Amino acid sequence: MSRDYQRPLDIRHGRIDMNHGAGGRLSAQLIEEVFLRAFDNPLLRQGNDGTVIDVPPGQRIVIATDGHVISPLFFPGGDIGCLAVHGTLNDVAMMGATPLYLTANFILEEGFPLAAVRRIAESMGAAARDAGVAIIAGDTKVVEQGKGDGVFIGTTGLGVLPAGRSIGGANARPGDVVLLSGTIGEHGVAVLSKRESLEFETTIESDTAALHTLVAAMLVAVPEGAVRVLRDPTRGGLGTTLNEIARQSGCGFLLQESAIPVLPQVDAACELLGLDPMYIANEGKLVAVVAPDCADAVLAAMRAHPLGRAAARIGAVTDDPRRFVQMDTTLGGRRIVDWLSGEALPRIC
Amino acid sequence: MSRDYQRPLDIRHGRIDMNHGAGGRLSAQLIEEVFLRAFDNPLLRQGNDGTVIDVPPGQRIVIATDGHVISPLFFPGGDIGCLAVHGTLNDVAMMGATPLYLTANFILEEGFPLAAVRRIAESMGAAARDAGVAIIAGDTKVVEQGKGDGVFIGTTGLGVLPAGRSIGGANARPGDVVLLSGTIGEHGVAVLSKRESLEFETTIESDTAALHTLVAAMLVAVPEGAVRVLRDPTRGGLGTTLNEIARQSGCGFLLQESAIPVLPQVDAACELLGLDPMYIANEGKLVAVVAPDCADAVLAAMRAHPLGRAAARIGAVTDDPRRFVQMDTTLGGRRIVDWLSGEALPRIC
Repeated sequence: MSRDYQRPLDIRHGRIDMNHGAGGRLSAQLIEEVFLRAFDNPLLRQGNDGTVIDVPPGQRIVIATDGHVISPLFFPGGDIGCLAVHGTLNDVAMMGATPLYLTANFILEEGFPLAAVRRIAESMGAAARDAGVAIIAGDTKVVEQGKGDGVFIGTTGLGVLPAGRSIGGANARPGDVVLLSGTIGEHGVAVLSKRESLEFETTIESDTAALHTLVAAMLVAVPEGAVRVLRDPTRGGLGTTLNEIARQSGCGFLLQESAIPVLPQVDAACELLGLDPMYIANEGKLVAVVAPDCADAVLAAMRAHPLGRAAARIGAVTDDPRRFVQMDTTLGGRRIVDWLSGEALPRIC
Repeated sequence: MSRDYQRPLDIRHGRIDMNHGAGGRLSAQLIEEVFLRAFDNPLLRQGNDGTVIDVPPGQRIVIATDGHVISPLFFPGGDIGCLAVHGTLNDVAMMGATPLYLTANFILEEGFPLAAVRRIAESMGAAARDAGVAIIAGDTKVVEQGKGDGVFIGTTGLGVLPAGRSIGGANARPGDVVLLSGTIGEHGVAVLSKRESLEFETTIESDTAALHTLVAAMLVAVPEGAVRVLRDPTRGGLGTTLNEIARQSGCGFLLQESAIPVLPQVDAACELLGLDPMYIANEGKLVAVVAPDCADAVLAAMRAHPLGRAAARIGAVTDDPRRFVQMDTTLGGRRIVDWLSGEALPRIC
């Protein structure tokens, strides 16, 4: 593209104004100097209304979409940019697919600093490159001050799925083993502590991460079909995710609370804040339902991966027409882990 | 899915609250009772993190994405729901692809009436069904009152493109003919008149429409390659769209103002409002650059289609290294149609 703007955008002092979203020269300049620069790849440079991609023969497509409205935009361990990449490519990966492409649309608020837009775009670009996915189409809109909140990002992810692979919530069956890839609760607590300006002795960082290489390592360790369900317990946390799988599969779950890893500082923060780690969002963890005879092999594959070192066997699928998620507590009782129904943490992803 | 909610949502009196976006039971209920009901299809009902689709062998994929922030949400001739469908599937169609699937993510503002959410969802569902595309994945987020504006919708469209087809801005070449599918300016004027509560003698309606069947009719009328460029002149209008093609192709354009169809009531409204129809958004029009020896055949195909009845030949591509878009005016002069650079209509799509 040509560089026929009168002068470059003043990233250091500039702010978003309504003309950045009007579709004219200033829109083109914002896209070129901030987004194309941060995401650069030949597909995005096609510059047409749509982007053309090839699909390898014999592969199906997996598509997932997410809106990101997290507040604050920057938090310990990440920001809305890398989160928008990880969140959506993880949804693609949870189908057993290899994520390849992302599209992104931005809703910017008038008055938002250009420097923050660039910082977020660069975080997105880096997260995508690190994960081996390309951001191949995008859109930018601007709303008046007070009609948005800095920036919202919608991302859609595309991946390819080999023929014959079927991973999904309906596949869980009684006797299957439930594995969790690591500690829960960091993301939600990190965001909340930043939002509320809470000071803990140690900073708790979000676990935001791309999980597709962990998934690939799990899948090669066992025969096709042994990994029945993969799910990343984001909004609503592990408790809600397991209830969703129970609803899809018609089974129940029985968990061992003592087996569910939680960092001590997260435990302490939850106690202080009156939160239950079972309902707190994670952005770099997955829960897997696997065939019982393959559980050890999958667990070993998880523990050999940097994002699965603290992986644990946390329970089993039960034959329960009520589809209850139950948990044997550390205190010796058994309780129902219901759907999150009351107040939850808003704007956590 | 089960119907295990205590009572149905109160669509008539209810309003969005933060819990509709928290990922728990109320989120699931909103999705089921409003969005799944409006968009219902088997792919969406898969209910996993991602949706699996098959790609016909030998086809490539075209993907396009758009954020929709139009204000007001309801306007003469349409609403944000059908607009979000048309806008994105038109971008797919402008590549010469057949649109098949859409994903949608919603950013809802706390306090927004559930009845309006349902009305918008039903408009989206109807527009998608009418166009033969399925909404196959979605996401819903909620932001606090004053941090959004009712609803924003991000849509991503997927279509299939036959091998060997190449339509894009870089393909225009000197001597090619420029065709326009109909009158310009209705969408922008309709939205603005509603927003500003302006009363004109006749109501001007948005032209929002799905253009893929018009594109298909044009493409079958002539040999592959004769239709070089297709573009829907939305935000920034016809003037900005032609400047984009000029930039991509390295050519110029010479237009005949007298040949560009504008409804008299749009002309009158533009005069009153101090607007130039060349820069006003359209949502149901396309501009085509075609090989000169095929122009008559393409124009005839357009005029035979309900969405192309007022199609016209409006100019030609010129050999101009400055890449100027010029126009012979009705007053007898020649002027440069520059990029939109000043104030534009905000939040028009």
